Amino acid sequence: MHNTIEKAEGKLGILTPGLGAVATTLIAGVEAVKKNLAQPVGSLTQMGNIRLGKRTENRNPKIKDFVPLADLNDIVFGGWDVYNDNVFEAALKAKVIEPMMLHAVKSELEAIKPMKAVFDRSYVSNLDGDHIKQAATKADLAQMVMDDIENFKEANDCSRMVLVWCGSTEIYLEPSAAHETIESFEEGLRNNNPAIAPSMIYAYAAIKLGVPFMNGAPNLTCDIPALIELAKQTNTPIGGKDFKTGQTLMKTILAPGLQARALGVKGWFSSNILGNRDGYVLDHPDNFKTKEVSKLSVLEDIFQPETNPELYGDIYHKVRINYYPPAGDNKESWDNIDIFGWMGYQMQIKVNFLCRDSILAAPLVLDLALFSDLAKRAGMSGIQEWLSFYFKSPQTAPGLHPEHDIFKQLIKLQNTLRHLMGEDLITHLGLEYYEDLTEVL
Amino acid sequence: MHNTIEKAEGKLGILTPGLGAVATTLIAGVEAVKKNLAQPVGSLTQMGNIRLGKRTENRNPKIKDFVPLADLNDIVFGGWDVYNDNVFEAALKAKVIEPMMLHAVKSELEAIKPMKAVFDRSYVSNLDGDHIKQAATKADLAQMVMDDIENFKEANDCSRMVLVWCGSTEIYLEPSAAHETIESFEEGLRNNNPAIAPSMIYAYAAIKLGVPFMNGAPNLTCDIPALIELAKQTNTPIGGKDFKTGQTLMKTILAPGLQARALGVKGWFSSNILGNRDGYVLDHPDNFKTKEVSKLSVLEDIFQPETNPELYGDIYHKVRINYYPPAGDNKESWDNIDIFGWMGYQMQIKVNFLCRDSILAAPLVLDLALFSDLAKRAGMSGIQEWLSFYFKSPQTAPGLHPEHDIFKQLIKLQNTLRHLMGEDLITHLGLEYYEDLTEVL
Amino acid sequence: MHNTIEKAEGKLGILTPGLGAVATTLIAGVEAVKKNLAQPVGSLTQMGNIRLGKRTENRNPKIKDFVPLADLNDIVFGGWDVYNDNVFEAALKAKVIEPMMLHAVKSELEAIKPMKAVFDRSYVSNLDGDHIKQAATKADLAQMVMDDIENFKEANDCSRMVLVWCGSTEIYLEPSAAHETIESFEEGLRNNNPAIAPSMIYAYAAIKLGVPFMNGAPNLTCDIPALIELAKQTNTPIGGKDFKTGQTLMKTILAPGLQARALGVKGWFSSNILGNRDGYVLDHPDNFKTKEVSKLSVLEDIFQPETNPELYGDIYHKVRINYYPPAGDNKESWDNIDIFGWMGYQMQIKVNFLCRDSILAAPLVLDLALFSDLAKRAGMSGIQEWLSFYFKSPQTAPGLHPEHDIFKQLIKLQNTLRHLMGEDLITHLGLEYYEDLTEVL
Amino acid sequence: MHNTIEKAEGKLGILTPGLGAVATTLIAGVEAVKKNLAQPVGSLTQMGNIRLGKRTENRNPKIKDFVPLADLNDIVFGGWDVYNDNVFEAALKAKVIEPMMLHAVKSELEAIKPMKAVFDRSYVSNLDGDHIKQAATKADLAQMVMDDIENFKEANDCSRMVLVWCGSTEIYLEPSAAHETIESFEEGLRNNNPAIAPSMIYAYAAIKLGVPFMNGAPNLTCDIPALIELAKQTNTPIGGKDFKTGQTLMKTILAPGLQARALGVKGWFSSNILGNRDGYVLDHPDNFKTKEVSKLSVLEDIFQPETNPELYGDIYHKVRINYYPPAGDNKESWDNIDIFGWMGYQMQIKVNFLCRDSILAAPLVLDLALFSDLAKRAGMSGIQEWLSFYFKSPQTAPGLHPEHDIFKQLIKLQNTLRHLMGEDLITHLGLEYYEDLTEVL
Repeated sequence: MHNTIEKAEGKLGILTPGLGAVATTLIAGVEAVKKNLAQPVGSLTQMGNIRLGKRTENRNPKIKDFVPLADLNDIVFGGWDVYNDNVFEAALKAKVIEPMMLHAVKSELEAIKPMKAVFDRSYVSNLDGDHIKQAATKADLAQMVMDDIENFKEANDCSRMVLVWCGSTEIYLEPSAAHETIESFEEGLRNNNPAIAPSMIYAYAAIKLGVPFMNGAPNLTCDIPALIELAKQTNTPIGGKDFKTGQTLMKTILAPGLQARALGVKGWFSSNILGNRDGYVLDHPDNFKTKEVSKLSVLEDIFQPETNPELYGDIYHKVRINYYPPAGDNKESWDNIDIFGWMGYQMQIKVNFLCRDSILAAPLVLDLALFSDLAKRAGMSGIQEWLSFYFKSPQTAPGLHPEHDIFKQLIKLQNTLRHLMGEDLITHLGLEYYEDLTEVL
Repeated sequence: MHNTIEKAEGKLGILTPGLGAVATTLIAGVEAVKKNLAQPVGSLTQMGNIRLGKRTENRNPKIKDFVPLADLNDIVFGGWDVYNDNVFEAALKAKVIEPMMLHAVKSELEAIKPMKAVFDRSYVSNLDGDHIKQAATKADLAQMVMDDIENFKEANDCSRMVLVWCGSTEIYLEPSAAHETIESFEEGLRNNNPAIAPSMIYAYAAIKLGVPFMNGAPNLTCDIPALIELAKQTNTPIGGKDFKTGQTLMKTILAPGLQARALGVKGWFSSNILGNRDGYVLDHPDNFKTKEVSKLSVLEDIFQPETNPELYGDIYHKVRINYYPPAGDNKESWDNIDIFGWMGYQMQIKVNFLCRDSILAAPLVLDLALFSDLAKRAGMSGIQEWLSFYFKSPQTAPGLHPEHDIFKQLIKLQNTLRHLMGEDLITHLGLEYYEDLTEVL
Repeated sequence: MHNTIEKAEGKLGILTPGLGAVATTLIAGVEAVKKNLAQPVGSLTQMGNIRLGKRTENRNPKIKDFVPLADLNDIVFGGWDVYNDNVFEAALKAKVIEPMMLHAVKSELEAIKPMKAVFDRSYVSNLDGDHIKQAATKADLAQMVMDDIENFKEANDCSRMVLVWCGSTEIYLEPSAAHETIESFEEGLRNNNPAIAPSMIYAYAAIKLGVPFMNGAPNLTCDIPALIELAKQTNTPIGGKDFKTGQTLMKTILAPGLQARALGVKGWFSSNILGNRDGYVLDHPDNFKTKEVSKLSVLEDIFQPETNPELYGDIYHKVRINYYPPAGDNKESWDNIDIFGWMGYQMQIKVNFLCRDSILAAPLVLDLALFSDLAKRAGMSGIQEWLSFYFKSPQTAPGLHPEHDIFKQLIKLQNTLRHLMGEDLITHLGLEYYEDLTEVL
Repeated sequence: MHNTIEKAEGKLGILTPGLGAVATTLIAGVEAVKKNLAQPVGSLTQMGNIRLGKRTENRNPKIKDFVPLADLNDIVFGGWDVYNDNVFEAALKAKVIEPMMLHAVKSELEAIKPMKAVFDRSYVSNLDGDHIKQAATKADLAQMVMDDIENFKEANDCSRMVLVWCGSTEIYLEPSAAHETIESFEEGLRNNNPAIAPSMIYAYAAIKLGVPFMNGAPNLTCDIPALIELAKQTNTPIGGKDFKTGQTLMKTILAPGLQARALGVKGWFSSNILGNRDGYVLDHPDNFKTKEVSKLSVLEDIFQPETNPELYGDIYHKVRINYYPPAGDNKESWDNIDIFGWMGYQMQIKVNFLCRDSILAAPLVLDLALFSDLAKRAGMSGIQEWLSFYFKSPQTAPGLHPEHDIFKQLIKLQNTLRHLMGEDLITHLGLEYYEDLTEVL
């Protein structure tokens, strides 16, 4: 298998629709890493290890030394935004990274200027901007994005391209007729069908060109039959949705732990305060709904109340996001979890996570870009469920329950890498270490 | 394989050295469950499900319906204690379960009277008691325990017996010469060698009779070469040590989550307040040392700083246990975790767990009793690493790193059960759900 | 002065509009105290001390031994409610006090049956009930309440009466023309003017009869010119509004502390979860608005941003109340306070208050009843600002800033009592203890 | 009175024994304030207001505009330390203030070089240093300090001097014979009596010269009869001890609030983590004992269990300080407070204070320097109890209970200032605003 993976030769272009706090934090970080000014912490592809073989073999290489990924030095960044600021200016405004560090990579960041965005205020209520593509139809807009991608590829001498959505949360959309088939979707593009959101136009453009597309927001985007079908036709890896950071990350760590121990859950109250652009957008109920759906499903899918009604049949789960400017990009979550144990006795867990939104998200963008590029070279097309690990609301094959348990997601990811490279899958059975036993078995 | 597992016919006697808060909470709970007054929450054997086959098969039986475990109605409880209180009296004093509930199972609890304990105050400084076996040598004491076990078995018409240590933490002991071989150990028994602690006498007695022995405290007990060898000779399952509850449970949930995401850790400060007998015993530095060793190793084994020095090479880990009477059995932990992410930016996680010590521990005793009885009937002898899930400091084959990650421990446990019953092991690879892909692969 | 205070002879009737969680907790508690089953903790009149004279005199009597208050044995309780449950039934449903304790005072509680309430669903959206007075005009309803009061007084042989509002929060009302004068108000009663809320009808009835009226909800009620004027005419003590419990209590403790030290405040985020009837009512935006106004003003009045703009000119203050049924009556608050110190360096305070709403409120009702009865006997009429200590939003003379600092409120209350009894006021100057100094001064 | 206060003319020299984190933070801050680069937040003398007259007068001047204090521009800093670093170097090492800010005041800080310290390692176990005075007797050392003070005064053209102790916590000392009289103390100096700690030598030198001395550590220092007597003889203001910051500050805010409401307290558990030099020193049990005594007395003095045994007679109070290097100067406290209310129902308050030790302490040094200089000019000599506000363990006249309630301390301070300036003392009685009432009264 691993013999058939194409080598990661030449440059990889990573384009992000949205050059705000997350994307600029990613780009500034990679440039700082290249200059040895910082470490790419939080990135599995750069810092993570993977165990191979038996425990006694002590094989624990870095993932980047195990699978053929693009090297950081071969990456070229670009993107689209509704504001005209270059990446240095945008990063300064985002106030995530200290000014001194930004100045250390100033020339690299200044060189990256956003392309005009596909944007429509009716999909993102609290946002505005004037660096926007104008065209008669959504089909024209899609073509303009395709042109952008190809021009960027040529101008930067890239051998491969990847798109990762780093834009805002759009209003809540249900799948509808226009999303059903490639034909209906393309007709919708031509007819300016309102069911086609800006993020779908980017996704379509990328997939049409065979360029992997990963969706970091809770928007539908590529999670519609039309684009799934197109991805198969064009051999394009796709995946989403909604970067798993902060409170939801904590939830997909804690909930499996409680379930592992068969501890019951009565209630889970989650409050968030954040003061960045994302917080402002989510203060609008229409945008929050999209996020809420993404956030609420997590517990249900982990606890599976239908198989365990005594323990999880009556959870009161509430999530609140509060715009609180003093926090800036320092998102803070507070969770109160009401659990019960032996004989129904009640206990409580309270978690206060003082996190940084973009700091947690940036390495996910990098990993998704590198892994989806790997998938492309390995010939894996369509939905990449093995990347569920990165998403609040993983896209899966129709009819398949998504897996939210971060530990099962990690095993899936790691066993996929082992499988790609011809290594044994790991089951943690380990009876062989106890020889007497194996004789019996 | 599963055809060769002996059926769980007849009664199972569960004996606990120590009939304090944990054991009485277990016994009262099981009696309440039998009367439909409570649910055995927190017990995997009673409330847990196990997924079998592919996700699309939707097979998720309860574990107790999948593997042949002893039925709760077939269990008979007994034990030893340094106090003469019957289980009803002891449970009232422990103040874990409400008096009204205890009265509802009063006659069952009153019927259980402790056998005289093997006890020596020099191993548990802050404890006292007068319901104690007197004998010239430790060998005599061991014989008296063996007699107790056999008498109990006959008197209660049991077909099988199990021992689970529910006693206090003993002072810190290093493995020494007397622990090396069966011979040296038995000589030590005869010579009253001080290296042989009371808990070892119980373990020896059980293993000698082929009765499974599980160790719920951080004491060495059966984790010495002499008793491991004896267990092999007598085909006895053994395991330990230290029930994983409260703060350490939380640690083995959170730490794998941080590591999964390649987030760095700079410091982990853990404070505990508890006001029960256990808290009082641990307030003495000698006893705390035994506990501290058990608690500190957890992070190191999960983070493996040697393979990941940039992320985990410099963790400052401190654990404090504070005796605080107002808390009673309601142990409360507070953790501050200093982590760092992308480019080294720092974040903090603060966890406040308002838990109940004995409520968390009781179901572990039940599971360990039932699973070690299963192991015995399945012919699995010696160290049962697949039960690591239940222990703060899992006993493993010599030379093998213990696995502390609760999620790997759970997969190990579940895959062992699947293996015993002839089901496919689960790897979470799942590429088969994406047909196009499997053609390619 | 204290020679002119009428003695507390005969029985005192305490009537509460609203016999829900708070009132039933009060009544059950007082009955339990009378039987020596519980202590009236949280009640200044019953448990509080007051220092008299110089520190070196060591005079620290209980307040109830210092000022002439009604004795608990002379109190008779009654009230109105929209449900027909007697106090025993209502207390059981409120789930604040354990059933066993309620049974110990069952006969006393069962004997108290609610009178029919003045109620209009358009003022309390989420509430319903069928135990309601019917009449053509609000004037008729007021007369019916007056009859209730006088009948109760006669039937129970009371020498004095007091009313304390323990009902729900009504929708937000601005003061309007009907509230301006006694005449316009009485005309409004006759014309069924919608500006006159049910709580005002109770207040009018009490004040008209010269019966002290205290308002425990954030409703306008007696805080309108018409009723203030009427209170002067009838020599009636009045006061309000909104019992100071839980998070706001904590705020009026912490905020003065920060201000004392000239520490700056950038933001204060307050989240609440509660699951009782009050939480359900406040989940409706109309009712929450009344509460929000009451809650938000606290910080502004304490910090006085106009005199200290550098420290308090830019506070972002947000209060959220979330209905969360698992909490029941156990209200829980979480506050994040962003402060700054020397040179602007930022710090944070996080307070998690696991409180019980009705347990905190009940003693306030008792104190307000006893103190307003004292005021009546001392000839103090109109607004009782010295009782600000008990209110989230203290009623003051027109044009006077309310004092929210709980410590200034306490000194005001204590110095008022000292003044009434002819004791020296305390200024904490205390230079006389340092004799050399006083010579100099 | 205020006419007799000497004007604050000429320069004021502020000398600190100890030029570590606290003192350098103070000095750097004052220099930054002078350049308009920062605000002196947390300093009552600089940022605080004081209400004068009736509420309706709206007189709320800044304290510095009300009483005649030394101007920041007239201050000259100096000090002693066991390390030879100048203030710029020491501030860099302390890591409290950002390097960029320190560079902005570099020349001012570099100019301040420590004088050699009086130091003896047997009083501060975990500390070392080589910039130390050598002399045959403690009397000689005292003379050398007096010479230092006078030389500094002359060299810097100061009209007045003040000393504020900013050094480490010394080991626990009980008052003994050498501390009894001026004569025994001076004999002890000559005989090198071990009961005389280094901090006492500084205090003696200052007081002997009539220079105000304030003690910021929990050491006995000037709280001994000999130095109190000397202060009277030389007309010197003295005060102490232990700057009230962090957790104890929070305690003296919260405890009075609970007591105000007659809420009972069962337990108070206080844990601290800090990673600076202070934390390291306090990790040694001998030094911690001095601190513990200072910290534990707070609650007892506020709650006065003897007058309120039902509420406060059985408090379990425990304080732990843990050295935790990842925290640096960012001290963090976690408090769990077990309270009970109406009928004994239990509630909990949990406070997590993410504070900065030196940021909280620095403005206290400034205020104590300015106020003790004011006291000197106003002819107030001996113990300055009105400055209790600043201390964990206020020094009072013999036989007088110290007042720990921060709100009473503040009123004492403010009324002292009003008294000095001939303004009415404030009692918060305020009955005059309710005219009808005053007629009655």
